[in-house]
Amino acid sequence: MPRYRLLVEYDGRPFVGWQRQADQPTVQGHIEQACQAVTGTAATVFGAGRTDAGVHALGQVAHTDLETTIPAWKLPDALNAHLRPAPVAILAAETVSAAFDARRSATARHYCYMIVNRRAPLTVKRGLAWRIPMPLDAGAMHAAAQALVGQHDFTTFRDSECQAASPVKTLSCIDVTQSAENITVTCSARSFLHRQVRSIVGSLVDVGRGKEPAGWVAEILAAADRTRCGPVAPPDGLYLTAVDYD
Amino acid sequence: MPRYRLLVEYDGRPFVGWQRQADQPTVQGHIEQACQAVTGTAATVFGAGRTDAGVHALGQVAHTDLETTIPAWKLPDALNAHLRPAPVAILAAETVSAAFDARRSATARHYCYMIVNRRAPLTVKRGLAWRIPMPLDAGAMHAAAQALVGQHDFTTFRDSECQAASPVKTLSCIDVTQSAENITVTCSARSFLHRQVRSIVGSLVDVGRGKEPAGWVAEILAAADRTRCGPVAPPDGLYLTAVDYD
Repeated sequence: MPRYRLLVEYDGRPFVGWQRQADQPTVQGHIEQACQAVTGTAATVFGAGRTDAGVHALGQVAHTDLETTIPAWKLPDALNAHLRPAPVAILAAETVSAAFDARRSATARHYCYMIVNRRAPLTVKRGLAWRIPMPLDAGAMHAAAQALVGQHDFTTFRDSECQAASPVKTLSCIDVTQSAENITVTCSARSFLHRQVRSIVGSLVDVGRGKEPAGWVAEILAAADRTRCGPVAPPDGLYLTAVDYD
Repeated sequence: MPRYRLLVEYDGRPFVGWQRQADQPTVQGHIEQACQAVTGTAATVFGAGRTDAGVHALGQVAHTDLETTIPAWKLPDALNAHLRPAPVAILAAETVSAAFDARRSATARHYCYMIVNRRAPLTVKRGLAWRIPMPLDAGAMHAAAQALVGQHDFTTFRDSECQAASPVKTLSCIDVTQSAENITVTCSARSFLHRQVRSIVGSLVDVGRGKEPAGWVAEILAAADRTRCGPVAPPDGLYLTAVDYD
């Protein structure tokens, strides 16, 4: 059976997350059902990142083995026809070697987190960003975040339910940029701990609003103590933007 | 009674449009109800642009006369508390002279129209952009659009239900830009005819996909004949972005 690599986009709002769960709407479950509708055979779809409930993806990558004569370039249309009306879209598909594994072969994952810094409630961006009503200093957030770059024990920024074997991860880069009321946190790593990005963003916001000093992020990282973490940012603003492979 | 100028943002999806209608959800109706909840007295809110069902606004401007002791800077919070959960937000409020009229005093209105040019269905941007599956030539669209700049009889691009006294309008500028799969049409004029922007965008898309030659837009404009207009673009991609005053 040929293996396909899928590029997947979704609005995370109606889902309990990527990972299949009985009787619950999940992104994985919807794509697996679409694969079965297209091929007539049950399929398992493996994603590069198991995003949480409400988290979005603009460039999730998945692989699946399908017994079908549909050429790869036609597969997105075929799957999308069965995914409707769920807000999940297959942007591209290609055949890959049986050695390709969306999760294990990934060399980098890229996330962005969208903050809207204003008093007024969100309208068009509701569910698609985190609104922070207090003024944020994006420059201070960026400066504080640089302490996280490199290889560290990220226990402080790790969810208590994280199943990773080790809390040691290497953050390649993290940048906080601002354009008018929009503050965006972008970060990349080979892999992330469960809720690591949201834990980091929540702590950076505590620095940005002046609740904590700039050096505090380095301090709580060094403590390697989950109880020292700031509030975890809501899923609304988080997007898995891309996954890299060799 | 002091007059207030309001800066308003909304997601047009749940509304039948800006303009109040009995027993229908409208943006104007929601803001008027919020004003009444805050002041205890019925209020009429006048908007600069009467956007259609499904059309969004990032910078609608409205005025209203309110008998209240709430200072202008506190008014957005007070109104927003009563607007919830409707996706309408008052971004700013200020007191203005009784001569200020959101519609009549406006010197320019600015719209943008968001197109996503790709085969795959929309997910995160569903209802917030128009997806065009056929490849579009944004450069050809921009070139064709320049024939519309200046003062013209825009009968071709005017909805049959338009109530404007004259079909002659002056389009200050119209630009088509592209960034990856996103094509944005921005345009400005002192005022627009009913569905003028959506009529123009639909016709530009016919040029962009190669259905019509570049000179066709100038030709149908000169014809001043509504039956010559291309398909009217859906409301999803249209945003009233700003209104200018002297």
